[in-house]
Amino acid sequence: MNPSLSALCGELERVWHDTIPLTRALEIKVRSFDGKSLEVAAGLAPNINLHGTAFAGSLYAISALCGWSMVHLQLAMRELHGSIVLAEGHIRYLKPVAEDIVAVCRFGEQAAVFDQLQETGKARFPLTTQIQAKGEDAAMFEGEFGVKLKP
Amino acid sequence: MNPSLSALCGELERVWHDTIPLTRALEIKVRSFDGKSLEVAAGLAPNINLHGTAFAGSLYAISALCGWSMVHLQLAMRELHGSIVLAEGHIRYLKPVAEDIVAVCRFGEQAAVFDQLQETGKARFPLTTQIQAKGEDAAMFEGEFGVKLKP
Repeated sequence: MNPSLSALCGELERVWHDTIPLTRALEIKVRSFDGKSLEVAAGLAPNINLHGTAFAGSLYAISALCGWSMVHLQLAMRELHGSIVLAEGHIRYLKPVAEDIVAVCRFGEQAAVFDQLQETGKARFPLTTQIQAKGEDAAMFEGEFGVKLKP
Repeated sequence: MNPSLSALCGELERVWHDTIPLTRALEIKVRSFDGKSLEVAAGLAPNINLHGTAFAGSLYAISALCGWSMVHLQLAMRELHGSIVLAEGHIRYLKPVAEDIVAVCRFGEQAAVFDQLQETGKARFPLTTQIQAKGEDAAMFEGEFGVKLKP
C-alpha cells in the first residue's frame, strides 16, 4: 500500500477499535486500500451463526463499516473533516459465507456530490459493498451515507 | 411472562449466546414476549459509536435478531422445527439512539404463509422491527426471513 494511504488506514483502524467496541468483537481489519477500492476482512469464527456460516448481522455491520470507512478515507484524502452517518441500508444475502469475510467497496467519481458538499456543507454519498464467497457474490449492500462538514 | 413462553425465551437466549458469538458482544437479551410481540434489549455502552450514540451495525444486528427470533418463537409455539435464514434486510435510521436499545417486533396472523409452509415445507415471512428513542421512531427494519421445515 502507498505509505500515506497506509497511514490513513492505520488511523481508521484506531478510530474503529477505540470508539466502536463492536468492531473489536467483529475482529475487522483493513486488508487493502488504493484510493478507490477498499477491502476489509474479518475471520469467520467471531462472526459465525448457528448454521456454521457468517451471521447476517455481522455481514451487514462489516459491509456498513466498509462503506462508512470509504467515505471517511475519501474525506481524509482531501483533508476534509466531517461527521458521517449511515441514513439507510439495504442488504441482499445471496449465498451463505462459510469462509473468512472480505468486503469490498469501490468509490466512483461522485464529483457532483463533492461539489454539493463544498457548496452546502452537507451531502449524501450512495455506496455499494460486496462480499463474495467461493468467488461468487454472497452479499450485496447498498447504503446512503450522510456527511456534514465540520467548520 | 407466561411460563411456557418464558421457557421458550430462555432457550432462545441460549441458542443466541451458544451459537452466535456476536450476540454476547451485543449483550442482547429478551425483555418480553407475549406470543405476538417480542421485545429485545441491549445496553448502549457495548454498542456505542464515535458519535456517542448507537452504532448503525448494532441497530441492524439487534433488529435482524429480533425478527429472526420472532420466527423461531412462532415455529417453536407450533412445535415446528425449521432452518430460518434472513434473505434480505432494509433499515432506515431516523434519529440517533443515545439510550439503551429496545427493538420490538410484532407478529400478525401470517396464516397464508403458515399454510404455504405446511404444504410445501418452505415459506418466507416478511417482518418489521422498530427501535424507538425518547419515545419516537429511531430505526425501522424490514426483513424477509426464509424458513425450510426440517423433516
